[in-house]
Amino acid sequence: MAPLRVAIAGLGTVGAAVADLILSRNTLINARCGREILISAVSARDRHRDRGVDLTGIDWFEDAAEMAMQADAEVVLELIGGEEGIAKTVCENAISSGRHVVTANKALLAMHGTALAKAAENASVGLLYEASVAGGIPVIKSLREGFAGNKISSVHGILNGTCNYILTTMRETGREFDDVLTEAQDLGYAEADPSVDVDGIDAAHKLALLASVAFGAGVNFHAVHVEGIQFISADDIAFASELGYRIKLLGIANQTELGVEQRVHPAMVPIDSPLAHVEGVFNAVVVEAGA
Amino acid sequence: MAPLRVAIAGLGTVGAAVADLILSRNTLINARCGREILISAVSARDRHRDRGVDLTGIDWFEDAAEMAMQADAEVVLELIGGEEGIAKTVCENAISSGRHVVTANKALLAMHGTALAKAAENASVGLLYEASVAGGIPVIKSLREGFAGNKISSVHGILNGTCNYILTTMRETGREFDDVLTEAQDLGYAEADPSVDVDGIDAAHKLALLASVAFGAGVNFHAVHVEGIQFISADDIAFASELGYRIKLLGIANQTELGVEQRVHPAMVPIDSPLAHVEGVFNAVVVEAGA
Repeated sequence: MAPLRVAIAGLGTVGAAVADLILSRNTLINARCGREILISAVSARDRHRDRGVDLTGIDWFEDAAEMAMQADAEVVLELIGGEEGIAKTVCENAISSGRHVVTANKALLAMHGTALAKAAENASVGLLYEASVAGGIPVIKSLREGFAGNKISSVHGILNGTCNYILTTMRETGREFDDVLTEAQDLGYAEADPSVDVDGIDAAHKLALLASVAFGAGVNFHAVHVEGIQFISADDIAFASELGYRIKLLGIANQTELGVEQRVHPAMVPIDSPLAHVEGVFNAVVVEAGA
Repeated sequence: MAPLRVAIAGLGTVGAAVADLILSRNTLINARCGREILISAVSARDRHRDRGVDLTGIDWFEDAAEMAMQADAEVVLELIGGEEGIAKTVCENAISSGRHVVTANKALLAMHGTALAKAAENASVGLLYEASVAGGIPVIKSLREGFAGNKISSVHGILNGTCNYILTTMRETGREFDDVLTEAQDLGYAEADPSVDVDGIDAAHKLALLASVAFGAGVNFHAVHVEGIQFISADDIAFASELGYRIKLLGIANQTELGVEQRVHPAMVPIDSPLAHVEGVFNAVVVEAGA
């Protein structure tokens, strides 16, 4: 079978790593999936930056939006990021020109996921976004396919690694939020502007996607009640420990009689729950479903 | 699209529940998957037993092996059980007559999975067995598809609900193994002959399947080192608690330099590990994989 041809838009940390994996793992992927993957085109801002990956022989596009329509590729990987602008145009152009889209962009999907999904359905192409939620946990696929015959009552979990790292370190060291955040920034676990993470926005983006897949409704980010971890003190954590709880930032989506309830906030998790022991930068998702 | 036609071999607890779900959830399944499922044929020992499900209008076969070759169905569900005999013949006949096979029969697959998988590949039909491992956790699909591009180093977990229920109850009540086992049998959590569960055989069947999928090798049940929970005492559990551990029956498959190591045995799990808090009849599977 001819290789699957993909075009990569964006060669930052994620894009360059994906290119490297496709190039170096092709034998493994071919053995497991029965088809090779070939990178036919890439696009990024600076053509001359060293990204530690050999892109010789791959078409280069200055303009990612143009690549999405012109590349000799069946699939476009959108790895630029951002909830508007070029990332959105890349996805729209790929879909309207009959190319499948793979993206890890939860912010874009949280805002425009329903419209993009409808466009993809009309164009009979796929819109896939496994990596946008819970990193390496294949939860989107599990919800869409593995639980296709189940009635899901709740999806909840730890959806932001930065917040979980900060809360874990606060508990282990007894230090305050600001202190631990500064250290996390120095270590590269938190962004220079940490607000998208610590205010709970990133977890809310992911929760809106999870809820949409679990409950078969459109993505509704604005319906998520959001509260971050920025006001959690070392005392809160110490008192919670004393009472037998861990404080975790949870994203929670429940099916209720009044519709789907979605919220992100710090929660007291009983110490005998598996979620209480997911520590550091790790994520975890719990799906509650009947037969 | 015409409905997907399935034939069900075996109408015990599992078979009758599957028939009921297909009949009662067809709208949901159709909405999510884009295709209806139609039960075209069934086979069981006693035609006249009341199974609480209305099978009017569905072809009845006295002989499941004959049904596997003759039914007007694209898919045969083997829900008879047993590692030899009729269950095996049903799968072989379905495959050789060009029908896909779905089975929850881990014992059969642990013994004959490699041969059945080869036959299915030659016949270009699917051999699917998600429900054979870890009940409702869609781990087979996740390993085969979600982790298709990852190098997996370890798969391990709690694979037998009966053993986990017994160990949990022993710890919570301080009672001995025999006492708790008898109670579990009364409650229907353990079989009259509990040896397949408590000796670790069932967990070893499942581990062999997991290891095969995770590491891309044939199923090799005989390579699994197996030790059950039948010699665990209340004292063992109390001492483990004192030292900060839970005793869990784990199935462990690791990729080593010498090949794939597979073992099932009671293990001391640190109390701050998520696995330590998976209690009662629940299962859990941990997949360790690099990028």
